[in-house]
Amino acid sequence: MENQSLTTITDRNVLLKENERIDELQRNGYKIIQNTEKFCFGMDAVLLSGFARIKEGETVLDMGTGTGIIPILLEAKTKAAHITALEIQEESVDMARRSVHLNGLADKIDVVMGDIKEADTLFPAASFDVITCNPPYMIKQHGLTNPDAPKAIARHEILCTFEDVVRSAAKLLKTGGKLFLVHRPFRLAELIVTMTEYGVEPKRLRLVYPYADKEPNMVLIEGCRGGKPRMTVEKPLIVYKAPGVYTDEIYDVYGY
Amino acid sequence: MENQSLTTITDRNVLLKENERIDELQRNGYKIIQNTEKFCFGMDAVLLSGFARIKEGETVLDMGTGTGIIPILLEAKTKAAHITALEIQEESVDMARRSVHLNGLADKIDVVMGDIKEADTLFPAASFDVITCNPPYMIKQHGLTNPDAPKAIARHEILCTFEDVVRSAAKLLKTGGKLFLVHRPFRLAELIVTMTEYGVEPKRLRLVYPYADKEPNMVLIEGCRGGKPRMTVEKPLIVYKAPGVYTDEIYDVYGY
Repeated sequence: MENQSLTTITDRNVLLKENERIDELQRNGYKIIQNTEKFCFGMDAVLLSGFARIKEGETVLDMGTGTGIIPILLEAKTKAAHITALEIQEESVDMARRSVHLNGLADKIDVVMGDIKEADTLFPAASFDVITCNPPYMIKQHGLTNPDAPKAIARHEILCTFEDVVRSAAKLLKTGGKLFLVHRPFRLAELIVTMTEYGVEPKRLRLVYPYADKEPNMVLIEGCRGGKPRMTVEKPLIVYKAPGVYTDEIYDVYGY
Repeated sequence: MENQSLTTITDRNVLLKENERIDELQRNGYKIIQNTEKFCFGMDAVLLSGFARIKEGETVLDMGTGTGIIPILLEAKTKAAHITALEIQEESVDMARRSVHLNGLADKIDVVMGDIKEADTLFPAASFDVITCNPPYMIKQHGLTNPDAPKAIARHEILCTFEDVVRSAAKLLKTGGKLFLVHRPFRLAELIVTMTEYGVEPKRLRLVYPYADKEPNMVLIEGCRGGKPRMTVEKPLIVYKAPGVYTDEIYDVYGY
């Protein structure tokens, strides 16, 4: 809590630090604290929260939660019993905790500081029904300029690889438990091979196309720990119907 | 040639047998002989011939060629030096050979009778630039009624599995050679895992959606023998823009 610039005290006595702002989430009146100089959540996190299927009473782990956007959206959209948010960067953990408090969700969401690679030492094996993850997309070396920056850690595989994510998820999921991921299509083969290797069978896949006549720029995948090898590829998710105009499905997932 | 009913002699003295007919292919004036009681080619073969990229002078093998539809379309659409068509069913081999003769392509297309599983004993290792295959889509047991029928052999993995296709292709492709496949999306994970296991890296993938808002019913995949792990997922291929009305791209691939 050193070097903090106190700029705002919200109605729940949540502190906002320098360069932080509060954004509305269009769900249950929930808000999120973000730092515009660090890393703000993107459409990928929102689409993943719409893609994930969580049944009433299930327990959820979000690995690499950043500011906690996915747990907060999932709490709004599902009837999960409890959501654990795991994050390695101290600043993000602190922001996520303040957002949880800001929304009055301290009994529903725990923010745990820790490393995805060591997640199996933080939680009991086979203890979650669902795991979600919006991992770094880029291979470590790809166009990296500042490996210490929070943005770089969120985007590049500096602190953990995709294999680390799947290895930990495979240990922490119950048999039949679900892993929901968003990633980049250029790594699709590797995603599927790695999931299969660790016994998290790809069961559902959806490609996100910015326009109906463009290459997809995101892929949403559901894996099932111990699932059988047969999958559903869903209808395309198209983002824009015209420049600047979202399709109805995107407005719907954003909650407008 | 026993039990044949000679019904027609074409201008190239090609015999048509009972239940056979000649269809126009809308490419170079080419035609194909099909037996309406057995198995006629579908849109998958046509889309695969449009998806395959073959450079001038390359040698091509089509595995499980059936009536030879893919080699004939590829001969029309590309500047391949030579195309070999491998087929296990004697009746299909006979029809494919007559179609090759009918189109005057005996110097460009060889039809070889043989088993995909033993293809590495029929051709030298690493001898093809390109391999194409429109394999049976269904697992052996799925809804099978008559395992001897040509339709069943074309549709179900009775005589060869997807792994057999990839194993043989990996042996017969040159390093850097390309494998082009069409298959069903429900097996996508298995396709990618098997190709990767045999060193035929998935490099390009396209999903075929019957309508823009429906699940895909075909997937086109390009693998590269010895390729590096990074792939392109292409824009969606939509078949119908309205009931009974193809999109422009489908008209284009059919050559209308």
